[in-house]
Amino acid sequence: MSGAEHGLSEVLGRTFPFPRRHFLSVLDLNPVDVAALLDLAEGFVDLNRQAAKKLDLLKGRTLINLFFENSTRTQSSFELAAKRLGADTINMSPRSSSITKGETLIDTAVTLNAMRPDILVVRHAASGAASLLAQKVSCSVINAGDGQHEHPTQALLDALSMRRAFGRIAGLRVAICGDILHSRVARSNVGLLQMMGAEVRLVGPPTLIPAKADRWGVQVFHDLRQGIAGCDVVMMLRLQLERMDGAFAPSPREYFRFWGLDREKLGAAADHVKVMHPGPMNRGVEIDSDVADDLTISLIQDQVEMGVAARMAVLAALAARLDNA
Amino acid sequence: MSGAEHGLSEVLGRTFPFPRRHFLSVLDLNPVDVAALLDLAEGFVDLNRQAAKKLDLLKGRTLINLFFENSTRTQSSFELAAKRLGADTINMSPRSSSITKGETLIDTAVTLNAMRPDILVVRHAASGAASLLAQKVSCSVINAGDGQHEHPTQALLDALSMRRAFGRIAGLRVAICGDILHSRVARSNVGLLQMMGAEVRLVGPPTLIPAKADRWGVQVFHDLRQGIAGCDVVMMLRLQLERMDGAFAPSPREYFRFWGLDREKLGAAADHVKVMHPGPMNRGVEIDSDVADDLTISLIQDQVEMGVAARMAVLAALAARLDNA
Amino acid sequence: MSGAEHGLSEVLGRTFPFPRRHFLSVLDLNPVDVAALLDLAEGFVDLNRQAAKKLDLLKGRTLINLFFENSTRTQSSFELAAKRLGADTINMSPRSSSITKGETLIDTAVTLNAMRPDILVVRHAASGAASLLAQKVSCSVINAGDGQHEHPTQALLDALSMRRAFGRIAGLRVAICGDILHSRVARSNVGLLQMMGAEVRLVGPPTLIPAKADRWGVQVFHDLRQGIAGCDVVMMLRLQLERMDGAFAPSPREYFRFWGLDREKLGAAADHVKVMHPGPMNRGVEIDSDVADDLTISLIQDQVEMGVAARMAVLAALAARLDNA
Repeated sequence: MSGAEHGLSEVLGRTFPFPRRHFLSVLDLNPVDVAALLDLAEGFVDLNRQAAKKLDLLKGRTLINLFFENSTRTQSSFELAAKRLGADTINMSPRSSSITKGETLIDTAVTLNAMRPDILVVRHAASGAASLLAQKVSCSVINAGDGQHEHPTQALLDALSMRRAFGRIAGLRVAICGDILHSRVARSNVGLLQMMGAEVRLVGPPTLIPAKADRWGVQVFHDLRQGIAGCDVVMMLRLQLERMDGAFAPSPREYFRFWGLDREKLGAAADHVKVMHPGPMNRGVEIDSDVADDLTISLIQDQVEMGVAARMAVLAALAARLDNA
Repeated sequence: MSGAEHGLSEVLGRTFPFPRRHFLSVLDLNPVDVAALLDLAEGFVDLNRQAAKKLDLLKGRTLINLFFENSTRTQSSFELAAKRLGADTINMSPRSSSITKGETLIDTAVTLNAMRPDILVVRHAASGAASLLAQKVSCSVINAGDGQHEHPTQALLDALSMRRAFGRIAGLRVAICGDILHSRVARSNVGLLQMMGAEVRLVGPPTLIPAKADRWGVQVFHDLRQGIAGCDVVMMLRLQLERMDGAFAPSPREYFRFWGLDREKLGAAADHVKVMHPGPMNRGVEIDSDVADDLTISLIQDQVEMGVAARMAVLAALAARLDNA
Repeated sequence: MSGAEHGLSEVLGRTFPFPRRHFLSVLDLNPVDVAALLDLAEGFVDLNRQAAKKLDLLKGRTLINLFFENSTRTQSSFELAAKRLGADTINMSPRSSSITKGETLIDTAVTLNAMRPDILVVRHAASGAASLLAQKVSCSVINAGDGQHEHPTQALLDALSMRRAFGRIAGLRVAICGDILHSRVARSNVGLLQMMGAEVRLVGPPTLIPAKADRWGVQVFHDLRQGIAGCDVVMMLRLQLERMDGAFAPSPREYFRFWGLDREKLGAAADHVKVMHPGPMNRGVEIDSDVADDLTISLIQDQVEMGVAARMAVLAALAARLDNA
């Protein structure tokens, strides 16, 4: 138990109030906030490696996971993060079939809000869903993915993984590759990485890069080798076939030939390159197992571990804000 | 944390043993019990509005939610109530398809009972299911809705909402409107409200009012405006199309025209009228959004909040009985 | 609370490090380990019968239930066991349809492992799945059933039930009857019972007994009355129609006539015979209700109760090993 208490004092010294009531977008943060959250998350990484992974920063607080889209990975990550901080948690997965759009989404949120949770974690297939809910409830809302819009805690955990691998984010050259069009992970990462001074490239076929991407202040490449040339980080995205009209979906074999990251193509990147993927991976489609499983270059398992720590940091900071309110 | 301790001492002073081992029907209570449960629940309302919503009245106790019918709302309410009192909780939702009637329902309950829970919360599509289980297990059973029979904690939370809005229940004129036939909420409310001295009216089309309703000691109306005339509370019920034979189900549009509560029809009620609905609402069917969302007259969100508090009161009283046993 | 503290000191005195990092097979244990686990479990039986069924042996530890096959019974048993020892628990039930074999099973486990759980409880339809995962993760793995291979905690809880009923396991004559072919319960029980000195018989139709069973050191019978003659324990198995090719599945009526245990056939066993079944039962198929519900001879409910206690013993011993590591 002394381990936990050691972690407790160390971590508590770093807790600070979250800058806003909600965490809907990476743009809710400024670079100082991000750095502070990453510092706080480092303390939780240490804590989570101890036997007694338990604090009471959120004791008596209630967190509700409201996932309209299935995601065992993200939901478990938030659930574990909340439990390790002592919160009571509830999981709700309304079947989308039984939900009529708009109004009933709000009814669900308003009903849950009346149960006096402190934090509502929302995932929904519609862009802007989390923001809409945040206007209707008195608790804090965390966006755990809204359509093709944002997934801010993913960007935070990715930044934590990069900072631990390279000691810094500023100046890193990061290539985000593949299905940018359907990816909220890409949007949140572009925003956060640019804010922290990294150079961001988007790499993919023209059909999978949004038309307005050239206005995001990034370089766009339509060739994987060219796009990742000299890069410190190559972040592969899941090919979201489930979001594509079948007629326009690429064949996995064809896609892998041009856009799948294998060791040969990876040779174009910097020698010290690190490979990332938000998961779950389509092995043999956007990434080769040979690369994904090479722990000397792959950060993919680290990302999952950093996910719990980064979410603990967000929850702790939100609770600190609520305590001060 | 001092907030919680304040709430603790205040609330603990009001805890008392539940009058029976099970809570299957509002008829398990007498008016003194109801008043005591509502007083206890008031303490939990205050607690739930604090940062640290956590007591240890049920620490070491196990509550199992056994829901054969889906209900995210009621299940979450019990789950939160139990967690905020420090209990360990388990949720079970056996798929009804895999359950053969009668015997296997009992096998499931007897199996769970052998895991030594303290309280089993049961929802089932068959009237009398909770009562049947209560005869087979050694733990306490709470009926969270059995077919068209009873839903006693709903009646308790409704009573709490009314008492908070009007300062009393005795003498209130309450119209329960719509699909009475398929409603366990109506049956439990009639019982509890009459016990507490309210005047209860049932208002709905003849096809949706049980034949024996005239023996319940209530007035029956077949016109919405006449039925709610001068009423203090108008409680709308969900039109349970899912329980109706399709051939006899009304069209939602037609139903709304005659039985949907809108501001115009509501004009017939008392000036200070409060509108209630157990949720989830069919907006535009039994109730107009204009009425449902007007927080000066609608108690619908309060009902959800009172639900957690009322269930905490029931759990605390059951635990107090178990402690004394 | 003093009850729990009494249980605490008593139980703590019996805790000991589990012999291995994982619990994949009954062969991970030797007779001394089994006896120690059963002694420890006895302490938890007492604890679970108290009001405050809560210790903090696993406080700050995380247990993940990863069930690729549905099993409300086994999953709840592990969940309750973990919660009563103070652990944080997460349930995950990936839909098997969305899982491609082998690789993705490992991806799921490796991802969960990165969240730094202490114990992963796995059920999977493939024999060897738990063992495969154990090679890929750093946490402890408990096999909660892998295909037709093993279900070691079931054998432990069965041994506990028998030892409590007869005061010993050595020398007991135990007939395991019915669908041996598809039963991991049978395999684990044969291993553990032989290790503890019981005499084991397998009784069933030739089509439902594995060809290699004669190499297991057991007697094989193809007649129920002959097989259970003079036995102290008759353990009936669930007829796993769901695992059979329809064309070769017996008719339930025909099966019951020859292989269903009723009071008449049971007359062949010893006078003091006890009847067991791992559940869920097919009443009227492999067992008659008249026998199953006779608490003077049936241990079926005891088995469920012993399941929670036996799993608490395994979890406590695994945690003690982790503490020493």
